[in-house]
Amino acid sequence: MKLKIRDELTQLEKNSYASAELVIPENCIDCGEGCNPYGYPKEILDTFKNFDTDKIFPYPHSMATTDAIIDYWKNECNLERENILLADGSISALYLINNIFNIKGAKVLGFAPQFADFSANIRLLGMDYKPFYANAENNFKMNVEDLIDTVDETYSLVYIDNPNNPTGQIFGCDMIKKLLDKCAELGVCVIIDEAYGDFMKKSNSSVQFLEDYENLIVVRTFSKGFGLAGLRAGYILASKMIISYMNKLSNPYQIGELTRELAASALKVGNNLDATMDEFSDAKSQIQKIIGNNLNMAETGMSVSICTLYHKDSNIDLQSEFLKYGVLTVPGAEFDGLDKSFVRVRMPKKSELPSLLDAIAKIDLA
Amino acid sequence: MKLKIRDELTQLEKNSYASAELVIPENCIDCGEGCNPYGYPKEILDTFKNFDTDKIFPYPHSMATTDAIIDYWKNECNLERENILLADGSISALYLINNIFNIKGAKVLGFAPQFADFSANIRLLGMDYKPFYANAENNFKMNVEDLIDTVDETYSLVYIDNPNNPTGQIFGCDMIKKLLDKCAELGVCVIIDEAYGDFMKKSNSSVQFLEDYENLIVVRTFSKGFGLAGLRAGYILASKMIISYMNKLSNPYQIGELTRELAASALKVGNNLDATMDEFSDAKSQIQKIIGNNLNMAETGMSVSICTLYHKDSNIDLQSEFLKYGVLTVPGAEFDGLDKSFVRVRMPKKSELPSLLDAIAKIDLA
Repeated sequence: MKLKIRDELTQLEKNSYASAELVIPENCIDCGEGCNPYGYPKEILDTFKNFDTDKIFPYPHSMATTDAIIDYWKNECNLERENILLADGSISALYLINNIFNIKGAKVLGFAPQFADFSANIRLLGMDYKPFYANAENNFKMNVEDLIDTVDETYSLVYIDNPNNPTGQIFGCDMIKKLLDKCAELGVCVIIDEAYGDFMKKSNSSVQFLEDYENLIVVRTFSKGFGLAGLRAGYILASKMIISYMNKLSNPYQIGELTRELAASALKVGNNLDATMDEFSDAKSQIQKIIGNNLNMAETGMSVSICTLYHKDSNIDLQSEFLKYGVLTVPGAEFDGLDKSFVRVRMPKKSELPSLLDAIAKIDLA
Repeated sequence: MKLKIRDELTQLEKNSYASAELVIPENCIDCGEGCNPYGYPKEILDTFKNFDTDKIFPYPHSMATTDAIIDYWKNECNLERENILLADGSISALYLINNIFNIKGAKVLGFAPQFADFSANIRLLGMDYKPFYANAENNFKMNVEDLIDTVDETYSLVYIDNPNNPTGQIFGCDMIKKLLDKCAELGVCVIIDEAYGDFMKKSNSSVQFLEDYENLIVVRTFSKGFGLAGLRAGYILASKMIISYMNKLSNPYQIGELTRELAASALKVGNNLDATMDEFSDAKSQIQKIIGNNLNMAETGMSVSICTLYHKDSNIDLQSEFLKYGVLTVPGAEFDGLDKSFVRVRMPKKSELPSLLDAIAKIDLA
């Protein structure tokens, strides 16, 4: 039977590592999923224990998360409730944003590689994703200047994940500001996806620009730094105008009542992220010290939980190599501009780091 | 600043009573929100207490809800996991469905009145909503035959909420089958939204037709009968083909881990719905007995939690009248084909029924 479904959906496959199914092979350490290996702040278990379960019967109306977000960013930006939209994780947030710009053939500029689910969604919506490829000769370092030079009035959207997924590299907020200036002139909207933003300094967040740029959308999640991926919570910050348009296509009851209270608690107590960032920096340094024969690490921000490793032989299936040594990673082939000789590695907790280092050392010298 | 946002979003308002904000006036009984006034099955609190909170740190991968759904419907349909898509409530489910058919100007047939958020979303996506208006002279009784006669190959979708929201009327599954036959010939997809489906016999659910009709999509939620609106959980049942297209536009991590376990428990233990349906039937009978002067009740299914009341004077703001007597209802003006002289009333629990009956009696005779 031929139903009247969008052509893109019947013709294109979805290319994304984000998947409902996950099988971690036995005796494997998980360096795949992007969550915080240390989990969530234990203080929120009080909120969990004290939760009034009668609240799961009516529709969710708590403003706890919204108000905690306003408070969390109060030194960076004077947010109001109308600047905030909750979403059940940042993937849903990105889908919603893309949908308000979803005009057939609308041009979207981004780096390659970047978060695979974003570019997949753009294409599946029939929009025109134009990636600016990171240069292998420059160790995949990406420059926001390149996007500034490329963007023109024919684009609807520019997308940057800061830090970048999968490399973990951080873009300085001074360059983001220049991009916002250029895009404001052109009527182009800029999405800054800070899914991994808890692993960089708060002062580098683009949240600080929200009051000055009506064309800025910032996406955050509780799944990474705050260790709450299993709850499904994220949020969008933008001008009241943009949020009002998104509200028209958003379920008004996003995020359940308990999740709203838990996310609010997490924002209040924090998640010891300074120490975690120091630890990840140290782990990445150790990796960098032991590679150089077969393996390289793409340009990265040391404090960020993820990095990209690649093999000098492009015929090597690097994810399979890591699996041989008991380490689950995300295959590079999932990302625009990378291939099977790349993997994304998420730093494990300290107790599992020796296993990761061991695997890396063996693959590097094999 | 003029951003490149879809015209429909900048030009149309969203008309829906479903709203993030809810203020129940003091001393008012809530007959507005569509949830089950008796809440959720208390047995699931064991699942809540025993939940391993370590599971909120990784991404959700539990198949508990999916497998419980298969078991719940095993006498009606041989479902497999690939026939099921989870969504954070049925509003999100409908948005996702609409999105896979979202071709500019695509024609969608439905009754008026019906669930307001559906038609609002169709219009905001730039699709062409064609309502078949219920006839006031026939007490707003809707006939599926009328849709069967109207639909032709120019339509992409037909939407029926069964039971209907806001009237609570139930459409027999024999007529739905005839509609499916006609639509299958035309390549038209049929959405049967059973959000209130827990308040009719399971044998009237269109789930029984899923194995035979590739053009059928059934939507269910845990928010109404199962009393779990605050958790955000619903699901879509359809052919593997349709589900595979929807998966391409869906967040793979819909519904958090705890919610998956709680929803699964609810399906297993049930929610004493036979008794609740008997009680609602009795409440509606009592209402019907005391009206007839100013007020009428539109055609309804007695067991369903909602009904529509209307005033003989179309200038009356009926929601305001009810508020004067301490009863919160949903205003009819939110629905296509109705106006301010209508309200949707959700049956309250038994202890609050006298207050509702008192208000109705006073308005009827005023």
